Amino acid sequence: MDSRTGLPVVGMVGGGQLARMTHQAAIALGQSLRVLALAPDDGAALVAADVQYGDHTDLSALRTFAKGCDVVTFDHEHVPNEHIRTLAAEGVTLYPPADALRYAQDKRAMRERLTELGAPVPAWRPVETSDDLVTFGAEVGWPVVLKAARGGYDGRGVWVVTDAAHAAELAATLLAGGTELIVEERVPLRRELAVQVARSPFGQVAAYPVVETVQVDGICVEVLAPAPDLSEELALAAQQLAIDLATSLGVVGLLAVELFEVADGDRSRVIVNELAMRPHNSGHWTIEGARTSQFEQHLRAVLDYPMGDTSLAAPVVVMANVLGGEPGGISIDERLHHLFAAEPGAKVHLYGKQVRPGRKIGHITVLGDDLDDVRARAARAARWLREGHSEREE
Amino acid sequence: MDSRTGLPVVGMVGGGQLARMTHQAAIALGQSLRVLALAPDDGAALVAADVQYGDHTDLSALRTFAKGCDVVTFDHEHVPNEHIRTLAAEGVTLYPPADALRYAQDKRAMRERLTELGAPVPAWRPVETSDDLVTFGAEVGWPVVLKAARGGYDGRGVWVVTDAAHAAELAATLLAGGTELIVEERVPLRRELAVQVARSPFGQVAAYPVVETVQVDGICVEVLAPAPDLSEELALAAQQLAIDLATSLGVVGLLAVELFEVADGDRSRVIVNELAMRPHNSGHWTIEGARTSQFEQHLRAVLDYPMGDTSLAAPVVVMANVLGGEPGGISIDERLHHLFAAEPGAKVHLYGKQVRPGRKIGHITVLGDDLDDVRARAARAARWLREGHSEREE
Repeated sequence: MDSRTGLPVVGMVGGGQLARMTHQAAIALGQSLRVLALAPDDGAALVAADVQYGDHTDLSALRTFAKGCDVVTFDHEHVPNEHIRTLAAEGVTLYPPADALRYAQDKRAMRERLTELGAPVPAWRPVETSDDLVTFGAEVGWPVVLKAARGGYDGRGVWVVTDAAHAAELAATLLAGGTELIVEERVPLRRELAVQVARSPFGQVAAYPVVETVQVDGICVEVLAPAPDLSEELALAAQQLAIDLATSLGVVGLLAVELFEVADGDRSRVIVNELAMRPHNSGHWTIEGARTSQFEQHLRAVLDYPMGDTSLAAPVVVMANVLGGEPGGISIDERLHHLFAAEPGAKVHLYGKQVRPGRKIGHITVLGDDLDDVRARAARAARWLREGHSEREE
Repeated sequence: MDSRTGLPVVGMVGGGQLARMTHQAAIALGQSLRVLALAPDDGAALVAADVQYGDHTDLSALRTFAKGCDVVTFDHEHVPNEHIRTLAAEGVTLYPPADALRYAQDKRAMRERLTELGAPVPAWRPVETSDDLVTFGAEVGWPVVLKAARGGYDGRGVWVVTDAAHAAELAATLLAGGTELIVEERVPLRRELAVQVARSPFGQVAAYPVVETVQVDGICVEVLAPAPDLSEELALAAQQLAIDLATSLGVVGLLAVELFEVADGDRSRVIVNELAMRPHNSGHWTIEGARTSQFEQHLRAVLDYPMGDTSLAAPVVVMANVLGGEPGGISIDERLHHLFAAEPGAKVHLYGKQVRPGRKIGHITVLGDDLDDVRARAARAARWLREGHSEREE
């Protein structure tokens, strides 16, 4: 509790854009997010008043950070699960709890648990030897998808394996390097969907509308809310699946369920791809596009406040990620001028990050009535902000 | 320019809720608002990363603060106009400029200039002796409204004078105390309206929809957007008036024009009550209720970015101020729980302020389709957050 305001102190481990945007939401709730950052130029450290510095893998740094926090939560999945257990045993409140978070930290544990729960998952197998991979490929057909159990994101830690020879070589190399692996069938997907739910310790759950996520090279570039041309039946089934998973896994805070939509005769069904237990790129559209942003909802959930209204603020909402381009060209400030002149309704979110090619440095949200129009405007705005890009190319 | 981000640094003098909410908007634009606060528990100082401490009447504190700011702007009107002139002469960019801001700092200067411009104003007169006031009352009829030319807000610095005896006594006392005074006729108003425009140095102007402001004891308690049952003709006239004033006065940033709606035969017309040149309580509804919040718009204007879309995000938007109540009763945190349970769609903004009876400590915004319903929900939510109030009273 902050004695100056009578309101709780939420600590977030990690100083990236998720903490940055969570701080914006905390301000409205009368709070000031406490951030554990690595460096003063982390996106959240640039804007938050209450910043501590330390490594998220250092138990003593975490222990110091947790002092005086009513609840500690996470901007990423990289805090060692055993540290979360240790702190919880010492009396710190951490959400999501270690027992839930492990399913977002370890893809093998997630696949095992989802299989036990009867949730729809691709055919999969742990890979402990090269033979495991070769055998699995022969059974389900090449190519297959090899994944590091831990630490991957934005396409990293995922390999498409084309044949037995490739499999034997790649698995041997990775296993020799100590990488824990699983393999999955390559699902013939129609598209990727995502659904977010928030769950409080009291057990209240609120689901957001199902969205379509458009990926290029394993990186999400665009989110369409609500997912276009999705049957109400499948939308409800996807939301129910996410609610059931949040409840079964004991999630507190946000759960993002990334889904594959696949053919099922004339209809479609969904298969669980990945889980994340924090604010998620697939939910950035909610800042302007839903009555309650995912960032506020995450705070409400971890504080055991009742959940906010998740309904759409417009018929169509599109979020486009802004990726870093090659250095050079006109400055980001000048590009903003051009963008604002062309698109007075585009909502810009910049993360204060150093630009590296392909890195997510911000996002754009556009609301409207017509999907094609809104999508074109969002994509154009995002391209204009990309470093090294001149508006003349339009 | 912030070398870490390549984006401009805006400095705001004053650490109240306007700076607090401007910082939220700055974060989305990739910036971090630099704040000159009086004390560490100022609302903005609690949440901003880049805070300096100093008195806004101290020229050397202002000079130090301005170093490294691309532009300096204001959370209130209390920076001495001559200090703004001095800093501008030294090369600092300050918006609104001193020549414009004086009309928001000095009601006599404002009334004189608006009279010259032919803008609709109440009958008024400067009061330099008790006789001036007595004579004016006799001419226009009692009661009349006596105002301090400088420093009043939220009903302070305004006196309703009932008759000649009252006038003579009050004016003598105030003039002896050195208070500069003007007097105005008491306008037989139908209601109060307000309209906000933003203007950039380039001269682009964007107007928000006209709103109705509901005042109790001189304090704004509620804002209805758009103003209900306002003819399109009068709405356009009010917006045009505000645009003309912003341009004539050379405003850069936001201009709020507080208006009286008065009868004009069978129809209505508007008269200018007050001017403010900063984000304003009558525009808090724009955070969720307009495509571009007033706080983002103020930043865009003072940075000479093109203006954002000012259109409504819902058919009806109601903002209700949360006023501090008597100490005691259940805590603010517990009241938030109750409020969120009852109104999942109410958007809460708390300012991190120490509670004093009658002080604005936050606001609530509700969006919807039906005015009566939205208004009732916003008012109920605001009452629930009031200190010393139990939800049982509902």
